[in-house]
Amino acid sequence: MGRVTRIIEVGPRDGLQNEPIPIPTQAKLEFIRELLAAGLREIEATSFVSPKWVPQLGDAAELWPQLPSGGLYSALVPNQKGLERALECGVERIALFTAASDAFTQKNINMSVAESLEVFSEVASAFRTALPKGWIRGYVSTAFECPYAGPVEPRRVVEVAQRLIEIGVDEISVGDTIGVAVPKEVERLTSLLMSEIPAERLAYHFHDTRGTAIANVAQAMNQGVRAFDSSAAGLGGCPYARGAGGNLATEDLVYFLERSGIHTAIDLDRLAHSSRAILESLGRPPSAKAQVATLTSDD
Amino acid sequence: MGRVTRIIEVGPRDGLQNEPIPIPTQAKLEFIRELLAAGLREIEATSFVSPKWVPQLGDAAELWPQLPSGGLYSALVPNQKGLERALECGVERIALFTAASDAFTQKNINMSVAESLEVFSEVASAFRTALPKGWIRGYVSTAFECPYAGPVEPRRVVEVAQRLIEIGVDEISVGDTIGVAVPKEVERLTSLLMSEIPAERLAYHFHDTRGTAIANVAQAMNQGVRAFDSSAAGLGGCPYARGAGGNLATEDLVYFLERSGIHTAIDLDRLAHSSRAILESLGRPPSAKAQVATLTSDD
Repeated sequence: MGRVTRIIEVGPRDGLQNEPIPIPTQAKLEFIRELLAAGLREIEATSFVSPKWVPQLGDAAELWPQLPSGGLYSALVPNQKGLERALECGVERIALFTAASDAFTQKNINMSVAESLEVFSEVASAFRTALPKGWIRGYVSTAFECPYAGPVEPRRVVEVAQRLIEIGVDEISVGDTIGVAVPKEVERLTSLLMSEIPAERLAYHFHDTRGTAIANVAQAMNQGVRAFDSSAAGLGGCPYARGAGGNLATEDLVYFLERSGIHTAIDLDRLAHSSRAILESLGRPPSAKAQVATLTSDD
Repeated sequence: MGRVTRIIEVGPRDGLQNEPIPIPTQAKLEFIRELLAAGLREIEATSFVSPKWVPQLGDAAELWPQLPSGGLYSALVPNQKGLERALECGVERIALFTAASDAFTQKNINMSVAESLEVFSEVASAFRTALPKGWIRGYVSTAFECPYAGPVEPRRVVEVAQRLIEIGVDEISVGDTIGVAVPKEVERLTSLLMSEIPAERLAYHFHDTRGTAIANVAQAMNQGVRAFDSSAAGLGGCPYARGAGGNLATEDLVYFLERSGIHTAIDLDRLAHSSRAILESLGRPPSAKAQVATLTSDD
């Protein structure tokens, strides 16, 4: 297989951001400690978005200095103001969030895609000036379909990804935001992306809303992609809300990789337990498939 | 793609057989009417196993004559006695259930695999005599791993499948009974099977216990397999019991096929509603992914 397959854990940020029940900072830190203990390394820990917009992550500046050692943490940064807050905290890895659909960015970040790329160009530039060795990832969400505008042309995804690369992004995370894609679509988009962008700069962010996420991972891996976002327990998005859809569960991804002979150094049993306190706070039983299978096989 | 992709709906038999809450015959018939209305045709409707063993399906002889027209129905037949009961009801399509693991058949049907094949040889022969144009499918369960004896050699699966073909079975349904397989294993087993058995006589019966079922379907389809078992709402097996695991949900399979450009003639919306009365009787909310996504997208 060559390169190591990377898992980017997005549970603490993407997984929690839309949860209305406030999770205390110490509970988030405990969650992150458990994720590290299970063997995860790359963790998107929070977002420096305005607390008015995402109250759940309003404690970013409080959380960041307390993050346990041993992780490669990143934080979402929406604009210059967020970048300033992040840099004050010592954040060295940032993530920028845009999409392939104007209708989606208008609803979610109140800008067109082009406007968001202008903002991010300045953010990336300021970040590079402050931290020449910092790391930037750029999300291209709604890469297959937009909940407001329908199907998205693969060509459009490549354009946005290329623009992000020009801006100075190190890695593109291509998102099936509403969890509609099947391997055939992944094959087409991946081929197109890889004709313009090296595989090692591509990641996929699949949602498992309709049960296709692992099939899509398998397809992308067959084409040489080696980085995948996932969320412990499938946290994130509400599976019962239209167009939201749950993140691919890290448990399912780890199970698939390990069983496929790809070593992850992640302890699936420990991982399956990592989200239990958070799930209890949210009043939900574990529901990610490999998580449930792992928990119920404990004697 | 050539041949039509077939879906064999096993919800009324495999989906219900282990449910302790008795479902009235009329409710089963309503379920089957709904499945037909959604566009399903091949339906495993019941089992002529002893009511002592599987009380839930003890009404097979009562149910069968009331089955709505328009379906291609099959029934599981465990032995000569079951065959006699089935023939009295006019059953023209039977299914025989064995496995690739002696430990599994011993626990489940109280015979070794070889003993089960002897019994089925006589059953198949008697069935052919009574109905020369009847149809027989043979299940080879635990085709990847046995919950009692561990990993199963693909060679062993091929041997059992070949023996079933010799006995006169028309189709082999290869089962990942505890839902552990990943595409790499499916690739290996399918290659081996197809070196001995024509693709049009092979079906797969995947469980989605760890989220890999659709990935496995995609892999098998890439190799030319065109028949898959599934269960509406993922009924069958209890996802919370060790080693049991839920059947691949028909909703997830239909979503995957349709989105992949393969016409199924199945109405996913109607299908997503088909199991609602049964789920209510069982006290469970819909949980199959594409089912939930479909139900929540209804305005």
